Amino acid sequence: MKYIGLHFNLFPLRGVIGYLVTPFRVEGTPDLGRLTDLVNHLIEQGVHGIAPLGSTGESAYLSRKEWADVARTTVEATGQRVPVIVGASALTTADTVDMCRTAEDLGADAVMVLPISYWKLTDDEIFQHYHAISDAIDIPIMAYNNPATAGVDMSPELLWRMVRDIENVTMVKESSGDIQRMHALHLLSNGKLPFFNGCNPLALEAFAAGAHGWCTAAPNLIGKEVANLWNAVESNDFRKARDLFLKQLPVLSFILSGGLPATVKAGLALMGKPSGVPRLPLHPLGEDDARTLAHLLSNLSS
Amino acid sequence: MKYIGLHFNLFPLRGVIGYLVTPFRVEGTPDLGRLTDLVNHLIEQGVHGIAPLGSTGESAYLSRKEWADVARTTVEATGQRVPVIVGASALTTADTVDMCRTAEDLGADAVMVLPISYWKLTDDEIFQHYHAISDAIDIPIMAYNNPATAGVDMSPELLWRMVRDIENVTMVKESSGDIQRMHALHLLSNGKLPFFNGCNPLALEAFAAGAHGWCTAAPNLIGKEVANLWNAVESNDFRKARDLFLKQLPVLSFILSGGLPATVKAGLALMGKPSGVPRLPLHPLGEDDARTLAHLLSNLSS
Amino acid sequence: MKYIGLHFNLFPLRGVIGYLVTPFRVEGTPDLGRLTDLVNHLIEQGVHGIAPLGSTGESAYLSRKEWADVARTTVEATGQRVPVIVGASALTTADTVDMCRTAEDLGADAVMVLPISYWKLTDDEIFQHYHAISDAIDIPIMAYNNPATAGVDMSPELLWRMVRDIENVTMVKESSGDIQRMHALHLLSNGKLPFFNGCNPLALEAFAAGAHGWCTAAPNLIGKEVANLWNAVESNDFRKARDLFLKQLPVLSFILSGGLPATVKAGLALMGKPSGVPRLPLHPLGEDDARTLAHLLSNLSS
Amino acid sequence: MKYIGLHFNLFPLRGVIGYLVTPFRVEGTPDLGRLTDLVNHLIEQGVHGIAPLGSTGESAYLSRKEWADVARTTVEATGQRVPVIVGASALTTADTVDMCRTAEDLGADAVMVLPISYWKLTDDEIFQHYHAISDAIDIPIMAYNNPATAGVDMSPELLWRMVRDIENVTMVKESSGDIQRMHALHLLSNGKLPFFNGCNPLALEAFAAGAHGWCTAAPNLIGKEVANLWNAVESNDFRKARDLFLKQLPVLSFILSGGLPATVKAGLALMGKPSGVPRLPLHPLGEDDARTLAHLLSNLSS
Repeated sequence: MKYIGLHFNLFPLRGVIGYLVTPFRVEGTPDLGRLTDLVNHLIEQGVHGIAPLGSTGESAYLSRKEWADVARTTVEATGQRVPVIVGASALTTADTVDMCRTAEDLGADAVMVLPISYWKLTDDEIFQHYHAISDAIDIPIMAYNNPATAGVDMSPELLWRMVRDIENVTMVKESSGDIQRMHALHLLSNGKLPFFNGCNPLALEAFAAGAHGWCTAAPNLIGKEVANLWNAVESNDFRKARDLFLKQLPVLSFILSGGLPATVKAGLALMGKPSGVPRLPLHPLGEDDARTLAHLLSNLSS
Repeated sequence: MKYIGLHFNLFPLRGVIGYLVTPFRVEGTPDLGRLTDLVNHLIEQGVHGIAPLGSTGESAYLSRKEWADVARTTVEATGQRVPVIVGASALTTADTVDMCRTAEDLGADAVMVLPISYWKLTDDEIFQHYHAISDAIDIPIMAYNNPATAGVDMSPELLWRMVRDIENVTMVKESSGDIQRMHALHLLSNGKLPFFNGCNPLALEAFAAGAHGWCTAAPNLIGKEVANLWNAVESNDFRKARDLFLKQLPVLSFILSGGLPATVKAGLALMGKPSGVPRLPLHPLGEDDARTLAHLLSNLSS
Repeated sequence: MKYIGLHFNLFPLRGVIGYLVTPFRVEGTPDLGRLTDLVNHLIEQGVHGIAPLGSTGESAYLSRKEWADVARTTVEATGQRVPVIVGASALTTADTVDMCRTAEDLGADAVMVLPISYWKLTDDEIFQHYHAISDAIDIPIMAYNNPATAGVDMSPELLWRMVRDIENVTMVKESSGDIQRMHALHLLSNGKLPFFNGCNPLALEAFAAGAHGWCTAAPNLIGKEVANLWNAVESNDFRKARDLFLKQLPVLSFILSGGLPATVKAGLALMGKPSGVPRLPLHPLGEDDARTLAHLLSNLSS
Repeated sequence: MKYIGLHFNLFPLRGVIGYLVTPFRVEGTPDLGRLTDLVNHLIEQGVHGIAPLGSTGESAYLSRKEWADVARTTVEATGQRVPVIVGASALTTADTVDMCRTAEDLGADAVMVLPISYWKLTDDEIFQHYHAISDAIDIPIMAYNNPATAGVDMSPELLWRMVRDIENVTMVKESSGDIQRMHALHLLSNGKLPFFNGCNPLALEAFAAGAHGWCTAAPNLIGKEVANLWNAVESNDFRKARDLFLKQLPVLSFILSGGLPATVKAGLALMGKPSGVPRLPLHPLGEDDARTLAHLLSNLSS
């Protein structure tokens, strides 16, 4: 097991990693000023890391230039207050390597790489893909498993093999929603592999199972509640954590089921931080759903 | 919501419910003497309830007379030290009603009913099935969801509707292994529905999520470890609970993946409590697997 | 490959195998007089074999005595006009062996055996189960794969191994609805394994793929249409077969999706052959669905 | 239902649509000379349409310029001998519209559009996506359902609604491998919707079910066998079609299971038409698999 975290003095990473939306102007281009506001907003909520250009950030729908603009702006706006983990995923290995190099050049503290696929990839193809990326950069890689969006599912065995054998693959984000994957990662690595949970409705149990952190867009909308949950977990008070989690669970479930870009953007608009709508073919949240979201948020704060 | 637990002064039920195997003699008939020993063994491990004739007990493979013999012997051997929840499930409603009446007559404190199916059942068919059973008895019914063995999956919505609207359906055992079902039961019932976890590798997280108890055959083999885990949970020390759980997880996973009757019987043989082999077409644990089990158990106690 | 069909001069079996419901009297007991009528009705429709006590026949919901009564009556009513294939499946190997012996004693030409399960069975457990049955009887066994009702799925590899290596396992009924299983059976056996299709909406394609026959309850309701389809297939006129199949497909799909016992019994009532209702927990067809069925049948005959 | 096929005098399309690989030079760029050879090769095999830039053509892994080069070269090489259907799919609606316009400008006779997704799309999002494309062009659109690669599954109901209500969506390619989808398309459209099969091991049954054609890369390697199968189908000789199909099925299954770009390129190399290797992260066919492919092809031609 490699030492993790020489690059940034806030590593090894633990806690809540806040995921950004990519705000768009009315004409459809990224609104970098609003993005800076959102970075500040997330840090004020107490997140322990900032992650642009993930699933929430509509990374897959941006041009390469837009992607770089968002990465650059996020790094600058964060100003090393917390680590920045930049999502960098493309269908070809060559494009992914290029994006990861760019992220490093722009000052990212780590990259998060999802093996998005058209043709299903074999374990060996995935391994070599991550190896090529690792060889090209000098910052940590978070291997991100999200079969629902990537179209390919990485087993705990493969994930552990990559962390063990590929220099810069140092941590895992598990978004499959299957707690047994986390158990398997623990047992395979004898507890040495730092894994993060990326499934909102599993936050409580992932912490119970030993997750190093929670990768989530929820702090955009309910930062205080998320911070309280983390603090209860940190103080090993799981009865309190359960109460806090179950109270916020309707919001966590809703923003996931409605699609994170659409629901988080709708919630930000409700909070006076309008960030535009998702890019087509994605639709914005419908009016009924927006009312439901307003109702759920209002319930939570009352 | 009905009051739960007038029947037996140890209700409302909480804690570890220990599931019995049905021991067989060499010639294949139930060994009721050995069964009495196993009841005592489980109670000595500190279980808070005893459950004969579940999946572990090969209930589905017994004749009606054998089933009644096992139920009677278990109730007598338990002697009201803890509640006895008798598994009672048949393909027809008429047979299930008969079995539940018999269980009540024999002194069971509750029955656990699984909607085993040949043709898939609709929600309405399942509801009426449980209603007919409830109308016939005066003891609590634990609605048992285990799609892998029953062939039918009961949604949290259906389970909550049955607990709310059917007199004697007062608790749920969830064995689907999906923690989100437990969250849904909590949210639907506003926290009022007592649910039990029946999936061994989910024990830690089910407690985190608020399960009233753990239905498990593990105390047959690792009673002390299971009791320690429960005590850590009861004292809200989830860091300790996690360590204890992850240490026993290899055993919990192994006895599930190998088939509970075969693996638990193999483990009991290793412990000097031979209980015969499962009934055909089920095979006993193979030699290699038996060695693995011995190794896992020995690791745990060292 | 063994020679198939010494037992009955109508073997090797080909064509349409008609599946019987088990008619019940108002008080719930099997109506053996009506059963005799239904046997005659099916044979008049031109079926090439008669199959009582399958899924359609609610075999799983009958007592052992009822099961034997239905088997005996069917064999007697058929009077060797066509072969009789008796469904004989139980959870334990011992019970299944007993049933198959009884079927043979009662004059069945073959038995159809489904590996119904509670605990999932391994391939080896299934193989030994069929082997024990084969050792006990001297009539052919149709290995029946229907994962939706049995709870266990037999791969083409396992099915072929059983036909090759177990004396009396001589044919396969595939009801998984996956045409690729039929291709695999063909390729594995070099075209020697006779397979029958048990999925109504796949009838056309199974014939295209070389199925020896179609196991179906449809002739109870639309005997002429089924016979016409078979005749078109036999004369290698697949354009005509397609037209006939697509015309009857709405009925075939409806009787499957509504549950065969409920829908076929509702249809028989519409035809003046009332056969009672399915046994609880199964419900009879609702009024709206019964009207839909009447409409579909009327469309077809017009 | 709109009239289909004013654009090209070979419409309405029927028969075998041959899918091209995108050949790469050693240095990794598209080899447009080899591509021209492959177009001629396919047309010599008797295909009724040519399709570049599908799944086989690694369309998802090309830059926009490479994609346009391949489209242009294919149209020119085909020279209106048969229709050209250009694959044009991107994550955003805007990019897909641009690609479809380009395809039309380059002389494509139709476009094939797959709703590739990152976030799952709702039916409404998909409908609007196709509507926007249709509004931008004047050539037919083949709606392509392939959930395994697209990450989103279009129901027969949605497909039929699009063909009915969107001007230029005039045909469907179904690659889910589920024959019941084709039946549903037939029943919903009263037989008016022209559907094509895109699942090689389903070719025989799709023709039985009334498919207008077969979209396949197989003619690259076994053009004569594919043509013979089509001819048997056209002459309504399904016994002959079955024999031909089952003989070529091992090849059809192998090239699908090994990944079409890798296996077809390996086969072309065996035939003296080397076309390079797939683009990373996709790996070329391994040596053992290449030997198996050689063996299967040699068996077929002997």
